[in-house]
Amino acid sequence: MDRHPTVEATAEDIASMEIRGAATIGAAAAAALREQAESSDAETPEAFRAELRAAARRLHETRPTAVSLPNSLRYVLRRMDGTDVPALRSSVVDAATAFEVRLDRAQSQLGAIGANRLQDGDVVMTHCHSTDALACVEAAVEQGKHVEAIVKETRPRLQGHITARQLREMGVPVTLIVDNAARRYLDDADHVLVGADAIAADGSVINKIGTSGLAVNARERGVPIVVAAQTIKLHPATMTGHTVEIEMRDEREVVDDEERATIGGIEVENPAFDVTPPRYVDAIVTESGQFPPESIVTLMRELFGDGVADPWLDPEER
Amino acid sequence: MDRHPTVEATAEDIASMEIRGAATIGAAAAAALREQAESSDAETPEAFRAELRAAARRLHETRPTAVSLPNSLRYVLRRMDGTDVPALRSSVVDAATAFEVRLDRAQSQLGAIGANRLQDGDVVMTHCHSTDALACVEAAVEQGKHVEAIVKETRPRLQGHITARQLREMGVPVTLIVDNAARRYLDDADHVLVGADAIAADGSVINKIGTSGLAVNARERGVPIVVAAQTIKLHPATMTGHTVEIEMRDEREVVDDEERATIGGIEVENPAFDVTPPRYVDAIVTESGQFPPESIVTLMRELFGDGVADPWLDPEER
Amino acid sequence: MDRHPTVEATAEDIASMEIRGAATIGAAAAAALREQAESSDAETPEAFRAELRAAARRLHETRPTAVSLPNSLRYVLRRMDGTDVPALRSSVVDAATAFEVRLDRAQSQLGAIGANRLQDGDVVMTHCHSTDALACVEAAVEQGKHVEAIVKETRPRLQGHITARQLREMGVPVTLIVDNAARRYLDDADHVLVGADAIAADGSVINKIGTSGLAVNARERGVPIVVAAQTIKLHPATMTGHTVEIEMRDEREVVDDEERATIGGIEVENPAFDVTPPRYVDAIVTESGQFPPESIVTLMRELFGDGVADPWLDPEER
Amino acid sequence: MDRHPTVEATAEDIASMEIRGAATIGAAAAAALREQAESSDAETPEAFRAELRAAARRLHETRPTAVSLPNSLRYVLRRMDGTDVPALRSSVVDAATAFEVRLDRAQSQLGAIGANRLQDGDVVMTHCHSTDALACVEAAVEQGKHVEAIVKETRPRLQGHITARQLREMGVPVTLIVDNAARRYLDDADHVLVGADAIAADGSVINKIGTSGLAVNARERGVPIVVAAQTIKLHPATMTGHTVEIEMRDEREVVDDEERATIGGIEVENPAFDVTPPRYVDAIVTESGQFPPESIVTLMRELFGDGVADPWLDPEER
Amino acid sequence: MDRHPTVEATAEDIASMEIRGAATIGAAAAAALREQAESSDAETPEAFRAELRAAARRLHETRPTAVSLPNSLRYVLRRMDGTDVPALRSSVVDAATAFEVRLDRAQSQLGAIGANRLQDGDVVMTHCHSTDALACVEAAVEQGKHVEAIVKETRPRLQGHITARQLREMGVPVTLIVDNAARRYLDDADHVLVGADAIAADGSVINKIGTSGLAVNARERGVPIVVAAQTIKLHPATMTGHTVEIEMRDEREVVDDEERATIGGIEVENPAFDVTPPRYVDAIVTESGQFPPESIVTLMRELFGDGVADPWLDPEER
Amino acid sequence: MDRHPTVEATAEDIASMEIRGAATIGAAAAAALREQAESSDAETPEAFRAELRAAARRLHETRPTAVSLPNSLRYVLRRMDGTDVPALRSSVVDAATAFEVRLDRAQSQLGAIGANRLQDGDVVMTHCHSTDALACVEAAVEQGKHVEAIVKETRPRLQGHITARQLREMGVPVTLIVDNAARRYLDDADHVLVGADAIAADGSVINKIGTSGLAVNARERGVPIVVAAQTIKLHPATMTGHTVEIEMRDEREVVDDEERATIGGIEVENPAFDVTPPRYVDAIVTESGQFPPESIVTLMRELFGDGVADPWLDPEER
Repeated sequence: MDRHPTVEATAEDIASMEIRGAATIGAAAAAALREQAESSDAETPEAFRAELRAAARRLHETRPTAVSLPNSLRYVLRRMDGTDVPALRSSVVDAATAFEVRLDRAQSQLGAIGANRLQDGDVVMTHCHSTDALACVEAAVEQGKHVEAIVKETRPRLQGHITARQLREMGVPVTLIVDNAARRYLDDADHVLVGADAIAADGSVINKIGTSGLAVNARERGVPIVVAAQTIKLHPATMTGHTVEIEMRDEREVVDDEERATIGGIEVENPAFDVTPPRYVDAIVTESGQFPPESIVTLMRELFGDGVADPWLDPEER
Repeated sequence: MDRHPTVEATAEDIASMEIRGAATIGAAAAAALREQAESSDAETPEAFRAELRAAARRLHETRPTAVSLPNSLRYVLRRMDGTDVPALRSSVVDAATAFEVRLDRAQSQLGAIGANRLQDGDVVMTHCHSTDALACVEAAVEQGKHVEAIVKETRPRLQGHITARQLREMGVPVTLIVDNAARRYLDDADHVLVGADAIAADGSVINKIGTSGLAVNARERGVPIVVAAQTIKLHPATMTGHTVEIEMRDEREVVDDEERATIGGIEVENPAFDVTPPRYVDAIVTESGQFPPESIVTLMRELFGDGVADPWLDPEER
Repeated sequence: MDRHPTVEATAEDIASMEIRGAATIGAAAAAALREQAESSDAETPEAFRAELRAAARRLHETRPTAVSLPNSLRYVLRRMDGTDVPALRSSVVDAATAFEVRLDRAQSQLGAIGANRLQDGDVVMTHCHSTDALACVEAAVEQGKHVEAIVKETRPRLQGHITARQLREMGVPVTLIVDNAARRYLDDADHVLVGADAIAADGSVINKIGTSGLAVNARERGVPIVVAAQTIKLHPATMTGHTVEIEMRDEREVVDDEERATIGGIEVENPAFDVTPPRYVDAIVTESGQFPPESIVTLMRELFGDGVADPWLDPEER
Repeated sequence: MDRHPTVEATAEDIASMEIRGAATIGAAAAAALREQAESSDAETPEAFRAELRAAARRLHETRPTAVSLPNSLRYVLRRMDGTDVPALRSSVVDAATAFEVRLDRAQSQLGAIGANRLQDGDVVMTHCHSTDALACVEAAVEQGKHVEAIVKETRPRLQGHITARQLREMGVPVTLIVDNAARRYLDDADHVLVGADAIAADGSVINKIGTSGLAVNARERGVPIVVAAQTIKLHPATMTGHTVEIEMRDEREVVDDEERATIGGIEVENPAFDVTPPRYVDAIVTESGQFPPESIVTLMRELFGDGVADPWLDPEER
Repeated sequence: MDRHPTVEATAEDIASMEIRGAATIGAAAAAALREQAESSDAETPEAFRAELRAAARRLHETRPTAVSLPNSLRYVLRRMDGTDVPALRSSVVDAATAFEVRLDRAQSQLGAIGANRLQDGDVVMTHCHSTDALACVEAAVEQGKHVEAIVKETRPRLQGHITARQLREMGVPVTLIVDNAARRYLDDADHVLVGADAIAADGSVINKIGTSGLAVNARERGVPIVVAAQTIKLHPATMTGHTVEIEMRDEREVVDDEERATIGGIEVENPAFDVTPPRYVDAIVTESGQFPPESIVTLMRELFGDGVADPWLDPEER
Repeated sequence: MDRHPTVEATAEDIASMEIRGAATIGAAAAAALREQAESSDAETPEAFRAELRAAARRLHETRPTAVSLPNSLRYVLRRMDGTDVPALRSSVVDAATAFEVRLDRAQSQLGAIGANRLQDGDVVMTHCHSTDALACVEAAVEQGKHVEAIVKETRPRLQGHITARQLREMGVPVTLIVDNAARRYLDDADHVLVGADAIAADGSVINKIGTSGLAVNARERGVPIVVAAQTIKLHPATMTGHTVEIEMRDEREVVDDEERATIGGIEVENPAFDVTPPRYVDAIVTESGQFPPESIVTLMRELFGDGVADPWLDPEER
């Protein structure tokens, strides 16, 4: 057997978006590699390694731009180690399991860590909607701290409304503001707390459009800015200089057809994310602890290698 | 005769909002003072002065927080000068007329001055809707310069839509963005160009909520920020340390009733304006020329006195 | 008569420190010039002017480094105007009186202006002891505002203790801290409020040692810094590039003899003042209104001339 | 007589560059206006004024982009005042003379003022060659102060060599460095001292290319930057928003033909000047005293009017 | 045997403060673990590990907020490794010894490293009294470099006097200043050199109150700030977001009873430490080399683990 | 045999500069150690280790200030590992080979990484001549991206001319400017891209004089600055606080003899390099990936150890 049916099935499900969401994709890929390892009938270490690399390549080619998919594959393959097939198999199974466990616990662990930064009585300002960021507030509330929130509505899609509702459900008093009012209310905030879509090797944070402008103002007002992000958001390709492409979204999120008709012939630009340089971020909170953004590359390398060569390539191809 | 009927009528019309709009109020007040001066039958200079001061007091008490009204009264009364009644009368009539002429020409004059700052091919970023700011672009277009615009939509009231339409009508290519996207597009802009609701003696600019956050980011990205404002927006009371009160507006501008119902029990804060410190502004363009914000107090004193005592008070009361 | 006995007596009293204190010296010098003018028997305008200039020179030479003395002389002599002796006399008498009135009212006027900057509930941080700064707080309290204070003790002479006591007597709740704790407590302050020993033409503020370090931290923490200073503190000689010499004080203010004996052979430096650049100051509050520090030179020139030539010199000597 | 022959002759000499150099042009223009006034046979004030305006227009049209020419014309015409021809004539003659005297004394006066900023033992860093800047050092040396200089060579034209030689001739020890070494040697400098080609109403300093980069580094290293510039360098047209056009010079100043041949087909850009924003300048030293750059507009208006309308236009044309 | 008597005795001595001081506590804890390991009669690896964890727990509970105690325990337990009891024992004994050796040599090693940063002729400014910081100066002096010091007295407890005396004893010329004079004398300093009470994972430095204000000013004046701190000062709990609690000390350190009586009813706040953000620190010098503060988390993890779970907990409890 | 003849020969060739250039020296030293290992007849691990250390000492003493030589020795000796001679030998041979491979591939690997940062249409500004920096541009061009360059001439030695020619040969459009024009043209640049002579543990970049001034301006104008440098440029001695000595070069690079004669008796300072603090650098691109400068110490330790003790010393000597 060369490729386990689960690998193929998982690849197809990822490609068809049956399997989606960063954590779900990551977990499925790790599981597929474990399955491949457990059922492998390779007779030599070389054959076993080649089999696993082939499985990883198959999985990777389905959605090459997702972040969690290559992170999962890198995590497992980098831990493949041993001089005989049983040892190799066992290392892959262990690594895949460890990755799943990590995924499973990540949000609650980082929530607890982020909560430790918050003091009783603190006010946080949020941008967009991030379950990682909310996990920090929730853990603080569970620690018995009184926390209040200033919630930016986050045009164009108003994800702040979701954040506001969920915070209210935790018992957190919420003040909702338009994004334009952020600088004025920063003086009432003790922390800016946001999530991340991806974190780059140079410490930049890719997050919902508006984050970088908020961060610059937070620094100017003396308010620390904290990014809550599971390590699955780390973006190893950036270690080799790749930049993260920013999605441009439908202009109808900005002006509906009626407004369009009134205004007439203009362009509308609607980028989904922006890039916050590390010097405007005070800490990145992950399930592996908190890091200054300038140090996150160390964690990235520890978890996923240095990215100079993909571990699913043949050594000769590298 | 002590008080001319026009003064009373004007006072009532201002109080009842029949006369409204900064320029209209200012012009009406100046005209009323002129009428009082022209028809005065005072026999001594003291009586004439007292009559004019009384007229000004009557006008001032109608809307003590408007900016243009006391500016108009200060402008005229500070120029009341002479040793006999005819000279005094003539000085008041001249000052009132000069003030009206100034008001009448201010926008086109400042537009021409602001246009001189723009180069052919420049891109301006706008916030909110300001006819003073648009006058600068319009004058530049009339000078034959190609100017493009990046227009922030300006939540909550989306005045950017009006700005976009009017710019388009001038033939200016427009790119509309949400406020959150401002920092990303600052790299494409050569100027940030905004208006002002009031300008304080310490050089602060009071303008639509979001201006100060934009200005901080513009400085960080190296884009100059220009404020276009007629001198009627100068706020002499700030020379004596008074701060400008910021209006809080209806929360339904931020969340409509349906959204409110979904989110549940939260506060909504909706301030209309914010305050941009002078260190984030490169120039204030008025009809009297452009000024660094730190120097605007000189112009304020030249036009409206030092504000330590209101000129409509009896000298003894001061 | 060439020189009125009062001029000589005043000069001697200033020289012998019988007359001392900035305001007292300024007032005495103005009064002496008035006396000289009133009793002059000069027959030509030239003679009158020469007489007044001579009187001013006599007074000036007594304490050439005081600030208020030349300010007083400049203020009066610059307003000496007329084509005959009576007109000249009257202009000097009026100017001397105006200067005395200004001196007399300055502190309460600037207190009222500074108070307008303070909001109900605000917390001010103070450095050293300044009656001008305290006048602002007192006026705010009299306006019915609740104001609290964080008082830096102000080593080496602990003038903060005096400030603390006087604030407490006004009913202002006081928190006393060591100077080293300032940055930590800046986050609790809405304003830094200090006085000045002198203000230079380039907008620099010369004040008690420690002011500049506080101002840099206040800017970094986003807290505005306000300087309360009567115009008698403006230092016209700085318009011609002169720098203000900083007094070095007795080292025993820093270490007493016993401590000295324990430590052994070291140097001790004990400068009385330091210089805060204008970019760290938000406003200078005077009895003539508040000014951005970069504009104070305009007020300086208006009150005291441009300083290029001393008005007590013969025109030929200039 | 409508136009005095001297006016025509002066206009022709300015146009043909027979008269050149900022100060020489300014003085000649003032002299021509005086001549016109002295010899005018106008019978009415209106005729006199029209004559003078016509003379000014004739002079102005010769070199409309020079700064000193319109400054001279503005200075004189703004001081034309009186209700009859003799008074008008006398006002023009006086103003023209005052302007010439000012020009004549300006450099030594500003040198004395700039020298007051320097302390015994100070080190200044220079850029390019400015006689105004050198006048400050020379006056300091004459005051008996020991001053040393770090001289940037100032590519492409190496005017630093001239500066170095002249400083050496004053007895000032000189260290010559390449422009690239400036930041390293800023730590040894107490002042950066440069001249200016023009100064704008917003406080910007237009000076030899490289000044702005030096100023940014000087601020970063905590070294104050002083600009020495006679008021003839003030650029009134910038009060109405005009920007100063930057001359692009011959590329052979950068690469000679031989180097060009070696390198091959590239572009060379060789701008003569750059623009330093006021926030990187500590003081502008003029013959009328020193000013924060943000206040220079006040002096500009005092000397040359507000620039909104050229004084040589008919009132109706404005 | 479950717990060695030395563990119990050490725990009691730490609890009773018989054993105190960061280094002494750390060494005692490591020794106790070694003793436990050496004398253990555990028969299985599991039993041995449980025994050691129990010993660590007992020691840890005595002073849970000290930094050096858990660092010692973490250091040793993280290095406990092996598949049988002898290997485990040996790993613990080795780790405990390594920790003691590290402690023993740390100050002289970091002193040598810090000394390498100092050049002959340099001037350092100190705050408070730190034997780590002084070790750097001492090593530089022993290298034959001439070093001078500006010593801040460090109110309220004047530890600067101790620093001054010890520096003088090394032959270092000392200038003592009040804390308020720091900014003025920063221009004479080549380095700010301070110690630390604790260093957080985000690169913040917790040190004597006044450090952060000094650091902000040092950055503004362009003077590098170096923190000398043994790795025992690293605070692993901050990797999980915990903040360091700041001790509030007796107000009588600030005002004595007599002063209190004079001033009357005020509050006195007397925090012992403050927090300096990493962006104001240039380097942290440890016995393991120097680090940018943003990288110290890497060293912290290398020495003490990632802090997500205490190594003295049962794996199941984590 | 104690020392292999190749070691001696290599040492002599390095000492006599027969072998020179950072990469060549590094490769030769690694090869010599491999030769020593391969031919060693040591009978005990201790003897083998001592032999290798002695060889390294011999090589190191030839040019103790070169950076690549100790890097090579450290790299190999730190990887010497094993419990018997064959294992030790094999580890040394492998490490030496790995080092050579790394050296060989470094520039093309980092070029590919740096190229990933560049977008199609980007403009880079260069300083001096760096083959590492040019490798990034070349790789981008090979990726099919259109890249343009603004090339600073880089006085005194005008290495910009070489850069310009090589870029032109790659087909990159070049604009050459004098160094003074850099700030003006930064607004047209998307990246500043430079090489490095050495990189310090605190993240400082030692590069051609002028780099730090450019970096400060690039930050002020919002342009990211990227340093391209192979890991052989990392300077491990800086981990122990050593600073990099800056070479002072011949003054005739600055003024030729003729210019000298004209100027007369002045000093000329001509430092070859300057030091850019990490806060002005956005990323360091190496063949091991890109790093924020504050994290480069982690890579330095991974490759070359912590530098606290040289690995060619006897353990007892450390």
